Amino acid sequence: MAQPLKLGLFGFGTVGQGLYGVLNETRGLNAEIVRICVKDRQKQRPIAREHFTFEPSELLEDPELDVIVELIDTADEAFAIVQRALANGKAVVTANKKMVAEHLGELVELQQQYGVPLLYEAACAGSIPIVRNLEEYYDNDLLSSLSGVLNGTCNYILTRMYEESVDYAPVLADAQAKGFAESDPTLDVDGLDAKYKLVILTGHAFGTIPAPADVLTLGIRQASAHDFQFAREKGYKLQLEALSRRLPGERLASYVLPRFVRPSDLIHNVSQEFNGVVVEAAFAEQQFFMGKGAGSYPTASAVLSDISALSFSYKYSYKKRAQNAPLALDRDVTLRVYLRYPTGHEPVLEQLGVHNIEVRHSAEGVSYVIGRLQLGTLLSRHEELRHEPFFLALMPEQPELDQGEPAEAAAAEAVAARS
Amino acid sequence: MAQPLKLGLFGFGTVGQGLYGVLNETRGLNAEIVRICVKDRQKQRPIAREHFTFEPSELLEDPELDVIVELIDTADEAFAIVQRALANGKAVVTANKKMVAEHLGELVELQQQYGVPLLYEAACAGSIPIVRNLEEYYDNDLLSSLSGVLNGTCNYILTRMYEESVDYAPVLADAQAKGFAESDPTLDVDGLDAKYKLVILTGHAFGTIPAPADVLTLGIRQASAHDFQFAREKGYKLQLEALSRRLPGERLASYVLPRFVRPSDLIHNVSQEFNGVVVEAAFAEQQFFMGKGAGSYPTASAVLSDISALSFSYKYSYKKRAQNAPLALDRDVTLRVYLRYPTGHEPVLEQLGVHNIEVRHSAEGVSYVIGRLQLGTLLSRHEELRHEPFFLALMPEQPELDQGEPAEAAAAEAVAARS
Repeated sequence: MAQPLKLGLFGFGTVGQGLYGVLNETRGLNAEIVRICVKDRQKQRPIAREHFTFEPSELLEDPELDVIVELIDTADEAFAIVQRALANGKAVVTANKKMVAEHLGELVELQQQYGVPLLYEAACAGSIPIVRNLEEYYDNDLLSSLSGVLNGTCNYILTRMYEESVDYAPVLADAQAKGFAESDPTLDVDGLDAKYKLVILTGHAFGTIPAPADVLTLGIRQASAHDFQFAREKGYKLQLEALSRRLPGERLASYVLPRFVRPSDLIHNVSQEFNGVVVEAAFAEQQFFMGKGAGSYPTASAVLSDISALSFSYKYSYKKRAQNAPLALDRDVTLRVYLRYPTGHEPVLEQLGVHNIEVRHSAEGVSYVIGRLQLGTLLSRHEELRHEPFFLALMPEQPELDQGEPAEAAAAEAVAARS
Repeated sequence: MAQPLKLGLFGFGTVGQGLYGVLNETRGLNAEIVRICVKDRQKQRPIAREHFTFEPSELLEDPELDVIVELIDTADEAFAIVQRALANGKAVVTANKKMVAEHLGELVELQQQYGVPLLYEAACAGSIPIVRNLEEYYDNDLLSSLSGVLNGTCNYILTRMYEESVDYAPVLADAQAKGFAESDPTLDVDGLDAKYKLVILTGHAFGTIPAPADVLTLGIRQASAHDFQFAREKGYKLQLEALSRRLPGERLASYVLPRFVRPSDLIHNVSQEFNGVVVEAAFAEQQFFMGKGAGSYPTASAVLSDISALSFSYKYSYKKRAQNAPLALDRDVTLRVYLRYPTGHEPVLEQLGVHNIEVRHSAEGVSYVIGRLQLGTLLSRHEELRHEPFFLALMPEQPELDQGEPAEAAAAEAVAARS
């Protein structure tokens, strides 16, 4: 490759600026940013005005550019940019998880139609090379589950609540002040960001791309000091886990839920703004990947690695998707949960169909139960109940299964017991 | 790929049998073992006699075979097999770390000369896909260090010594009885196995393949309950760490040494027979990979993944080696060490050139110092002193650097301070 790759960049926020800095400090990579398209004509920029344009077509229609790097916030605009770039024969690198998750099927088709690659390692788990490992290394036939902590903001908040015994609101406010959480934290704390990442990773792990709306997603907004007191008493941590697990009969369980985590669990040590991913395969057993999940430089480094891969003609092959009939999302999965609510709000138990209650606890106006419910019921009802003051988290595998049973059977049974 | 890959297998020990089982249980992979070459004509085998031959040329000269899978113990015989297989235009998959480490430069040339690939993911850190990640994902320009726990046997022994406060000999005996350690444990407990893996990984991380003899390697044979008492008092664990770190001036520090590890260290949680690898890159910061480092099925799964990669025409490109002048191994690195010896054996301090002693401790016939020594001195002298009754381990970064200094500078300073 004699000629450097010529890049057109959309967006010049923290990641875009990080990428610009990283590219300038990297000898090895044969690529240069030719022009940057931004929206705000008034904003002061840290580099000279001549690098910028406000007209997308100056990048998208420029035959000199090989690659479009898309780093804007808005998913719909990003999708329009990516569509046009691919149609114009340009390779694309993006970090926009919402856009990729919502359009992954179409994006696979577009890549095949126009014969140009789209890479998005930066959209999933920051600097961890998980998309590429799922795509290249783990044979789908042997892969039983993919799970992990995929949102650094939630993990930062949960780590601080656990370590400092403080409540949700002040930790969120502090995280916002420090730039670890957005002023509108919805995408992060309601689990949507983790859901988008899970959708993409599930596509590369199993060849099936779940519709985001079908993935049960509860966040951490209702977590309180009560839940952390419970966690500490039991020797657990509380983490927001995203999981997709293959079930018998070509089915798939897929959800994002808070979960109480034992010290023996690989994600137990994922703290602060780190992300961690666990891949379970039949013969390799558990594999664990951990790295910074957010921040301008870790994300920029993933973008950079995709650019580097393009310079060696890398593309995702999506071979699992081509080889396999899609797995069906299973709603009939029984979950073992902890459900905490203000004493007196017991109707929520019936609304969520909680059954097989093992533990009922009530003290000083706060109650919790430990019992079971169906994934499908929760998926149908949780939206209408989202303003109800309850907090739900998965419990770890059943204690009685810890002894004697093979670990894998116990984990499979507990995480996704069929009713 | 219409035709299945036809494999010839050398060796039918635990990994070979694991591979045979894994291949038979895997639908997705288009490959079959046509014939297996073994040595012992008398040994009972778990599968029918017709699968076996005792004549290497029946595999190596068979034009029908596409791939030779080499899973024998002896490095020299393995190298002869691999040379002949490559010369005959056959792709090769091997798990033999000693053979690959000792001949990596030649093996790169042979692959280029004959235009066929050699893959050896199973030779490094069992089931962790680290060779491929270093080769494909981490740009060498941004990579500052590669380190980790690479020997599952040592880690198993050290974990049990730590958790049960028992001494080395009974734990080793028990590990041997359970099949976690060989009857001759030298390769593992003297750090040689970890060294071979480090040599290979260093080649893929930095493009420089160190000569195994130039990599300072001390094992855990002399570890005792005294050292674990020290570790517990300080809040450390003791692990055998392999490390290669890029130093200023196109130099490289590379060694395998026991190290006291803080809870904040990523490898702190690598316990039992697991392996863990930490990759430090300028912008991605620390990335951590963990998985089973030994055992027939984890190793077989790495072999299987290489076979799968061959079916998609994958090969290592060794581009860092082609792009870069080799880094020189730096002997002039100052190490901060803990050195424990029987009181009265103080001459060992002078023999090893221990200086800047911060702590001297002596009680009940056992002494230790904390001080500094030069990597080069230790490399020159440790062979002649190997029967001396001392135990040496690296200390973590200096306490005074924990406060205020940027973490990266502190770590770099501590791990590889230039004198």
